[in-house]
Amino acid sequence: MTCWRRRLLSVSSVRKELWIENCTSPSSKRYICTPNVVDTGYQTLKSPSIVSLDSTDVWDSGRIYSGLSFVQASYDDSIANKIDGHLIAEEIRRGIASEISRMKASIGEVPGLAVVLVGQRRDSQTYVRNKILACEEVGINFELTEFPENCTEDDICHALMRFNNDTSIHGILVQLPLPQHLNTGRILDVIRLRKDVDGVHPLNIGHLALQGREPLFIPCTPKGCIELLLRSNVEIEGKHAVVIGRSNIVGLPMSLLLQRYHATVSIVHAFTKNPEEITRKADILVAGAGVPNLVRGSWIKPGAFVIDVGTNAIEDPDSENGYRLIGDVCYEEAVKVASAVTPVPGGVGPMTVAMLLYNTLESAKRIFKF
Amino acid sequence: MTCWRRRLLSVSSVRKELWIENCTSPSSKRYICTPNVVDTGYQTLKSPSIVSLDSTDVWDSGRIYSGLSFVQASYDDSIANKIDGHLIAEEIRRGIASEISRMKASIGEVPGLAVVLVGQRRDSQTYVRNKILACEEVGINFELTEFPENCTEDDICHALMRFNNDTSIHGILVQLPLPQHLNTGRILDVIRLRKDVDGVHPLNIGHLALQGREPLFIPCTPKGCIELLLRSNVEIEGKHAVVIGRSNIVGLPMSLLLQRYHATVSIVHAFTKNPEEITRKADILVAGAGVPNLVRGSWIKPGAFVIDVGTNAIEDPDSENGYRLIGDVCYEEAVKVASAVTPVPGGVGPMTVAMLLYNTLESAKRIFKF
Repeated sequence: MTCWRRRLLSVSSVRKELWIENCTSPSSKRYICTPNVVDTGYQTLKSPSIVSLDSTDVWDSGRIYSGLSFVQASYDDSIANKIDGHLIAEEIRRGIASEISRMKASIGEVPGLAVVLVGQRRDSQTYVRNKILACEEVGINFELTEFPENCTEDDICHALMRFNNDTSIHGILVQLPLPQHLNTGRILDVIRLRKDVDGVHPLNIGHLALQGREPLFIPCTPKGCIELLLRSNVEIEGKHAVVIGRSNIVGLPMSLLLQRYHATVSIVHAFTKNPEEITRKADILVAGAGVPNLVRGSWIKPGAFVIDVGTNAIEDPDSENGYRLIGDVCYEEAVKVASAVTPVPGGVGPMTVAMLLYNTLESAKRIFKF
Repeated sequence: MTCWRRRLLSVSSVRKELWIENCTSPSSKRYICTPNVVDTGYQTLKSPSIVSLDSTDVWDSGRIYSGLSFVQASYDDSIANKIDGHLIAEEIRRGIASEISRMKASIGEVPGLAVVLVGQRRDSQTYVRNKILACEEVGINFELTEFPENCTEDDICHALMRFNNDTSIHGILVQLPLPQHLNTGRILDVIRLRKDVDGVHPLNIGHLALQGREPLFIPCTPKGCIELLLRSNVEIEGKHAVVIGRSNIVGLPMSLLLQRYHATVSIVHAFTKNPEEITRKADILVAGAGVPNLVRGSWIKPGAFVIDVGTNAIEDPDSENGYRLIGDVCYEEAVKVASAVTPVPGGVGPMTVAMLLYNTLESAKRIFKF
């Protein structure tokens, strides 16, 4: 077992004063961040906790659809709207902060989130740093446990079991992807279902997929995408939504969630022949393939709403970190065709973090019956 | 609690001599069928136990696809092939019977299947009857417990818990749909996962959906459809498959399973605007909406492979039972456009039953480590 004591440099440099070192095992390092609670006006999400699939699936050829109005209405020139995920996420975080403030004042408790980070992936470190800052802002206690690249599954599972039994922790997240030698499924299965705020447990996915069932948590990135659509006044029901990619944390739950909102969903992946033929039919296009600039202007239906979930790190010596993030969508081309496009960075990323906060708050409220 | 003592007439008339009455509660009636084991040549399924989603999702624009060859090759006149589900299912059942015979000779055990039937739906009674006959044919012990329409959830759950603990039972199936007043989810959750041969447990569906996971059982109807495709030499990878309907037992698992075979999947449902625009793009079209004759010839791409999962009971005074089953596909129109169509009855139905037998055998083999 290797003792790995390197901190997330960028994090520690920003919030050094708030971190309490609490080393619990030779191979892990644990930090606890206890922020102040900020009181701002509370505002709920646009998306309900869950959308039922149990509405009547009545096949009526005479049905009147209101579909596509958003596309036609908003596509009035050749430059798409840039969807400001930072701004929308900020508004959501204010609502969450207010609710946490109310919780603290009322029952003397605040939500707690535990994150496990393995290895030294730069993108993962960036994501975790953003989560720490966001937790601090809204008043969620944050606990980070870091493991070295060569740690064992048991190392991680033991940490997760400790969080499972820790009554101050209401949400547990393992930052993905994990190093190749680790069995991700085995590790994620250890997380107690009611603390699985990332919504990646198979039972949670099963509940998301099935009619008559309700997941405890909706996976953060898809939930953030839906929130972006709803806050942009995009009607989802009856629309053709195409999801590019079928990963466990983006493509799969995104396609299942869009179906809950009664979109007609097509899933495009690497085996798809001529994917652009299908994406060009999409009123709502969600790109989560993990391929930089995969989606060109020619892939996009004029007036479509394009959500770019891709976060591809490419070398950039001019950047502070030596790299920068670009999306799956060729932004410069997309804005000439779509009615709206989410940028990378600053689109889905902040929304994912906001949804993680939201799910953690929901978990704490559920546990405290608040 | 009402004592309901009416047998499945059509079943009892056919196999009266094999049924042992064993009434276990005032509201249920239990029959046990212990058939002979038939020894015939064993043949495995064409479909593997599970197809991994973990293959490389490499996006390569230069990829060579062999797609559509089946469509072009077999669509050489205006009358489609009729896919004989009875014949294919019979072949599979022979293989299962042979394997069970080998099991009995080797370890003195045979698989056992328990089925719970609630109420007096004619279609459900027909399905259960077919399952009983098929179990008997291949050498699976069958146990039927019937409940009246107005039984309680607890009545059913108690029966299921008994089956969970019964070492002679390796598969448990609740015939769906259940009466409206019963919570189907709560009832199905009681079935022990390793005996859930219908594959409807949320955890099983989650495992079917997620990369890196493997379900214990693939739901019977989708598995039967895949087997029909493979035995018809239809290549699935890279094909555009459109699934009509999104039910828990057909549409949803079908779409997930087709993705495991690397089809590009679109799911069409009652909220879909102009569904025929999407279905007309389908190389493989699976209809499971539960709407008689929904799919007209104009909905079908020339040369497509059409699987009709619809089993809609319509009144027919000329029929022995007073009704007959028709599909979701207008067969007369479909055969003029498609390369192959499964009929109703005699298409997917017998395959569903065969897959139930297969899953029950697999469960017993797993339990006995055979």
